[in-house]
Amino acid sequence: MKRNQLHKQVVQMAQKAKTASLQMATVTTSAKNTALKKMARAIMDQAAYLVRENKKDLKIAASKGYSKALIDRLTLSEKRIKEMAQCLLDTARLKDPVGEILKVFRRPNGLRIQKMRVPVGVIGIIYESRPNVTSDCVGLCLKSGNAVILKGGKEAFYSNKAIFSVLKKALKKTHLPAESIQLVDSTDRASVQILLKQDQLVDLIIPRGGEGLIRFVAEHSHIPVVKHYKGICHTYVSHKADLAMAHKICFNAKVQRPGVCNAMETLLVHRRIASQFLPQMLKQLQGAGVEIRGCPITRRIVKKGVNKASSKDWDEEYLDMILSVKVVNDLTQAIDHINHHGSHHSDAIVTKNSKEAEEFFRSIDSACLYHNASTRFTDGYQFGFGAEVGISTDKLHARGPMALEELTSYKYVIYGKGHIRA
Amino acid sequence: MKRNQLHKQVVQMAQKAKTASLQMATVTTSAKNTALKKMARAIMDQAAYLVRENKKDLKIAASKGYSKALIDRLTLSEKRIKEMAQCLLDTARLKDPVGEILKVFRRPNGLRIQKMRVPVGVIGIIYESRPNVTSDCVGLCLKSGNAVILKGGKEAFYSNKAIFSVLKKALKKTHLPAESIQLVDSTDRASVQILLKQDQLVDLIIPRGGEGLIRFVAEHSHIPVVKHYKGICHTYVSHKADLAMAHKICFNAKVQRPGVCNAMETLLVHRRIASQFLPQMLKQLQGAGVEIRGCPITRRIVKKGVNKASSKDWDEEYLDMILSVKVVNDLTQAIDHINHHGSHHSDAIVTKNSKEAEEFFRSIDSACLYHNASTRFTDGYQFGFGAEVGISTDKLHARGPMALEELTSYKYVIYGKGHIRA
Repeated sequence: MKRNQLHKQVVQMAQKAKTASLQMATVTTSAKNTALKKMARAIMDQAAYLVRENKKDLKIAASKGYSKALIDRLTLSEKRIKEMAQCLLDTARLKDPVGEILKVFRRPNGLRIQKMRVPVGVIGIIYESRPNVTSDCVGLCLKSGNAVILKGGKEAFYSNKAIFSVLKKALKKTHLPAESIQLVDSTDRASVQILLKQDQLVDLIIPRGGEGLIRFVAEHSHIPVVKHYKGICHTYVSHKADLAMAHKICFNAKVQRPGVCNAMETLLVHRRIASQFLPQMLKQLQGAGVEIRGCPITRRIVKKGVNKASSKDWDEEYLDMILSVKVVNDLTQAIDHINHHGSHHSDAIVTKNSKEAEEFFRSIDSACLYHNASTRFTDGYQFGFGAEVGISTDKLHARGPMALEELTSYKYVIYGKGHIRA
Repeated sequence: MKRNQLHKQVVQMAQKAKTASLQMATVTTSAKNTALKKMARAIMDQAAYLVRENKKDLKIAASKGYSKALIDRLTLSEKRIKEMAQCLLDTARLKDPVGEILKVFRRPNGLRIQKMRVPVGVIGIIYESRPNVTSDCVGLCLKSGNAVILKGGKEAFYSNKAIFSVLKKALKKTHLPAESIQLVDSTDRASVQILLKQDQLVDLIIPRGGEGLIRFVAEHSHIPVVKHYKGICHTYVSHKADLAMAHKICFNAKVQRPGVCNAMETLLVHRRIASQFLPQMLKQLQGAGVEIRGCPITRRIVKKGVNKASSKDWDEEYLDMILSVKVVNDLTQAIDHINHHGSHHSDAIVTKNSKEAEEFFRSIDSACLYHNASTRFTDGYQFGFGAEVGISTDKLHARGPMALEELTSYKYVIYGKGHIRA
């Protein structure tokens, strides 16, 4: 497609979404829930078609020699299709955030001001690989009263297109505006750049995927972006910790699912308990297959099988069975290390001393801070948000698990009795 | 200054601010208030010096033939210096937003999650002309626990530098980190571009000034921006309005202070009461010196002295004694007009029917919506926020009047008892 044709197409899409978003802001909760349920049913009914279209992507992926992990993320099994439908049904059951009164205040002059939760408007989601993102995000955006423009990765081109067409067809049979969901079905990256310039029509951009994609989006967007970067998560074991508890928490944070952003990447240990704590802890981790990269003191305490941590290790998100370990002098050094090397995602302290925990909470600039718990709980479902768009590593608008409420804005509605300004 | 030297200078400034911001997040409310009071005192003590330095800017402004309005905004009188000091004292009296618990929830597994208000971190403020912005923003940013990097306009170069040096000197005598306030004292616009790329060090950019400046910042920033664009504000007079009340509200919204963003620019009137309402209303406005630009029906009703509104008029922020007037068929047409031509700032409906008001509130995508009140109330002081950084026309993070709370983010602090994920 020629550039100016593509430009026209993307802009028209954004205009349609904008118009639909104004209608979406006023539809009832029950109309939204009915639509989500119809879409869930359509996904189940069309499962065979979705599997067939997905095979086209898988064939291309195989011919291009994509990694096993990517092919796994790309695959639409019957089970995953069922999960997609279930996610839509779950979202239908969540509380509608729109219209909630966040605050009411009356001014001395008698004006009554209400701060009311409203949809953001038009949300652009730019994502990679997993095709279920298509339906999950449609569900979350519609439930929160928004219109959505989707731009998936080229590796899932046929799958995304098929899922979208099933959802769109179902949506046309409801009371929601059909133009409230849009899919940019071009594989040309220029389409993303065009979308990122539509700041008059699109209110929010959410990139989901690798760091390269997110950085590209952040650098080219004229529209506000909420970024979902990596997680370099720490656990600090204080000399005041219950060491048996620390043991369990650290093992869980590293091993239970190492490939995700809330898994622990660096273990910090107070020097006073390092000799007591580390030998057994590292042995257990190594037994589970974790490679240990330690600081000099760690390597003096545990002589066998601990690789040398290089300066780079402290800034690394392994997403793998690798752990860097550092012995620190005190809480202050642990805090400094985390603020300096962390990614402001999730960090934990294990201690029996609540004053230490409060200092840790106050001083560390991260989205989620844990006292005596595994960092693995940073997750929309675990927080009770029902579903999630992702984990924001930004500090503006949304931070940490991002779900329905974080897809909303607010407005002030003000009730007067003929009030004028003096 | 050479480009690479300037680059180094701006980056170092941002690094110092970043380090200071971590300390700022943990300082006590009383330490912050004491610092603000000391700064207020210093401003008063150094008033003569400030006036002297301001004269240098005024001399240049005169030689360059700047407009009277700009020179007025630039001038630091004794009265304005006193107001700057007063604003710092007022800010000291405001409630500290940091540490507020926004939400507490307990999960079925026993985890207790607290959502806590925290400072944003490092805030960059890029502004034009008015030198009082320098001290006002220092006060608001420090009170909300942030570090701030200021970049004023070149027309106020000497004034900003002088105000900043007085504040910095005072700050050094307090318990707050002196590096928490920074001033980019280069007049090279390249310094702004360098600052806008420091997304690892700066958390939020707030541009204040003309549309050109704001657009430049939004297009070049890799850092989240909260924009403060124009106000094309409407008042819709329903056929169900108390016309005497409508009269007073419209006059106030247009005439009380026409040069500000919350003044009315377009009046919409229901056709059924147009002949009854418009003649007297327009006569009164014209009597006060307002130029009227009307739609064809308006010109049929009021034959004398109403200019023809061109299609451009509906999208114009006059900031002047000019008003466009349009007769509409019904509430729906009024809503469509406002959503299409407005700037999502402040809009009002005058009606005795509360259902109409609720539909107006629900359907219009603006930061502030008024029922039976003048749009002129959109203002941090009028809302009871004490002070304001500005009126955000964005929908992300902050919308409408932006004050202390809007200069904060949040974090989740989670209390466990050895919780691990299954």
